Amino acid sequence: MSCKTILASKVSASFRNQIKEDIKERNIKPKLVGFLANEDPAAMKYAEWTSKTCAETGVEFELRKISKLELEEKITEANDDKSINGIMVYYPVFGGKQDLYLQSCVSELKDVEGLCHKFVHNVYHNIRFMDETETMKCIIPCTPLACVKILEYIGVYNPVIPYGNRLYGRTIAVINRSEIVGRPLAAMLANDGAKVYSVDVNGIQVFTRGTGIKLAHHKVEDIDATVEQIIPQCDVVITGVPTPKYKMPTSLLKDGVVAINFSSSANFEDDIKTKASIFVPSVGKVTVAMLERNLLRLHDYQNDLTEKNKN
Amino acid sequence: MSCKTILASKVSASFRNQIKEDIKERNIKPKLVGFLANEDPAAMKYAEWTSKTCAETGVEFELRKISKLELEEKITEANDDKSINGIMVYYPVFGGKQDLYLQSCVSELKDVEGLCHKFVHNVYHNIRFMDETETMKCIIPCTPLACVKILEYIGVYNPVIPYGNRLYGRTIAVINRSEIVGRPLAAMLANDGAKVYSVDVNGIQVFTRGTGIKLAHHKVEDIDATVEQIIPQCDVVITGVPTPKYKMPTSLLKDGVVAINFSSSANFEDDIKTKASIFVPSVGKVTVAMLERNLLRLHDYQNDLTEKNKN
Repeated sequence: MSCKTILASKVSASFRNQIKEDIKERNIKPKLVGFLANEDPAAMKYAEWTSKTCAETGVEFELRKISKLELEEKITEANDDKSINGIMVYYPVFGGKQDLYLQSCVSELKDVEGLCHKFVHNVYHNIRFMDETETMKCIIPCTPLACVKILEYIGVYNPVIPYGNRLYGRTIAVINRSEIVGRPLAAMLANDGAKVYSVDVNGIQVFTRGTGIKLAHHKVEDIDATVEQIIPQCDVVITGVPTPKYKMPTSLLKDGVVAINFSSSANFEDDIKTKASIFVPSVGKVTVAMLERNLLRLHDYQNDLTEKNKN
Repeated sequence: MSCKTILASKVSASFRNQIKEDIKERNIKPKLVGFLANEDPAAMKYAEWTSKTCAETGVEFELRKISKLELEEKITEANDDKSINGIMVYYPVFGGKQDLYLQSCVSELKDVEGLCHKFVHNVYHNIRFMDETETMKCIIPCTPLACVKILEYIGVYNPVIPYGNRLYGRTIAVINRSEIVGRPLAAMLANDGAKVYSVDVNGIQVFTRGTGIKLAHHKVEDIDATVEQIIPQCDVVITGVPTPKYKMPTSLLKDGVVAINFSSSANFEDDIKTKASIFVPSVGKVTVAMLERNLLRLHDYQNDLTEKNKN
């Protein structure tokens, strides 16, 4: 069996070290506030990781446990509090559309998760800077960004190809089309050149880059195909189905596939290593590193330390 | 039987006439584009009404029938098209959170439905102007606004009481807590002084004005009560359950209640007039009038004709 298992802790190590050094060298003390308004075990675990990683890297982290109905007001207060550099919320809170409303209540300048409408919109439209002079890079939703960083780490992104095109020729399946992870991830991978099959209970869509469309750098089509038909064509399969009941059948995967799971449940079967060349069983620790990376970026924007001003 | 039935056409007449006169006197030609990306019969009926009312009042209306997957790009094009003053979308499109994402894709300056994040956020926070100098009034979501205009028309808002307090002392139930109508409506009524019971399948909440909270002018509490307990206390019951199966039992209503239905299905029982003092069976035509009213306002903002500049 020659499958290589890559742990998120390994991928995140270099990011964590870089963040730690940066904070130490510059003698700054960025502060992140996390709001926990649910009893979801996955959210609580994620909060623990955030706390632990922040302590290791020199980020001040404060977990605020509050009730659902206080949340919007507490976000508003944190938006206005200059001692806070970043705000995150452990979802789900209400679970439905109200959560999407709440995501946009976080100020753009403090949105470490990259989930407010502007940032998500920019992902779909392949807009990579917040400002016209291109000194402030956009904040990218954390979990999709973590998946991209993992794909870079394991060599799926080909650095020989010019930036913005490094997935050209790759076929990738993303099993999840949530507004928080699956849909933006499919768009990002397509914007970088991949052909992406986006799969959820409502059907299968293909995300590919259009040609010459002004803003929308990828286009989306519904296709009339089955998982059984598309999975054998995929070089990379990324799963994120939030239940242990869902399993991607190993028998469908092509030999040497790259298998990545971002669900808190194991979505690949136990024999995945008999087929995959690379297997990444979870991404959570990379997500937390991306949170911190976004925090540092926002800290600098708040203090007007854009690339231009730093040089 | 002394119940007075008030038709939406009657409430909307004065608004329609005012809009028509305004357009004629000022010799303007505001243009509204509606995007229809579903086959929903209620949406198609709403599109017909929009078209008919626009023709009567002098608004140029163009219905664009497109596929779901084209919608975002078409909205972006319309945002950039200076010949278009207002944009609306007939929902549902995808039906889930992606629809909320789409609502915020419409430019604030063209959002006649008032559904983008900024406008909905301002409703919750009781922020009534778009700008600091208070020359540009906020756009308010159409259906909640239509309900408020109906409540004004039928005397539930008491004009003897100062503006912003005209529902003080009233108890109102809103049966629907959608992000599009029920939740913003409950907030608006509470911001104007009412005690509002917001009811949906997940439970009952009470919206009342807090005291002295900087931005959130109402607060929300979960309460452990049943529909049977709260409805008999309500002066006004507003229903919006999108199925003909749902019926508010007449037996629960207090004598002389004001009954308003904004669902496209009849949510009150056939004998409602034996209990109600006023019955409003539908609100759709007032909603369309509010769309046009918002369109004129946005037309003026686009042409820098705010109240200040008009005087």
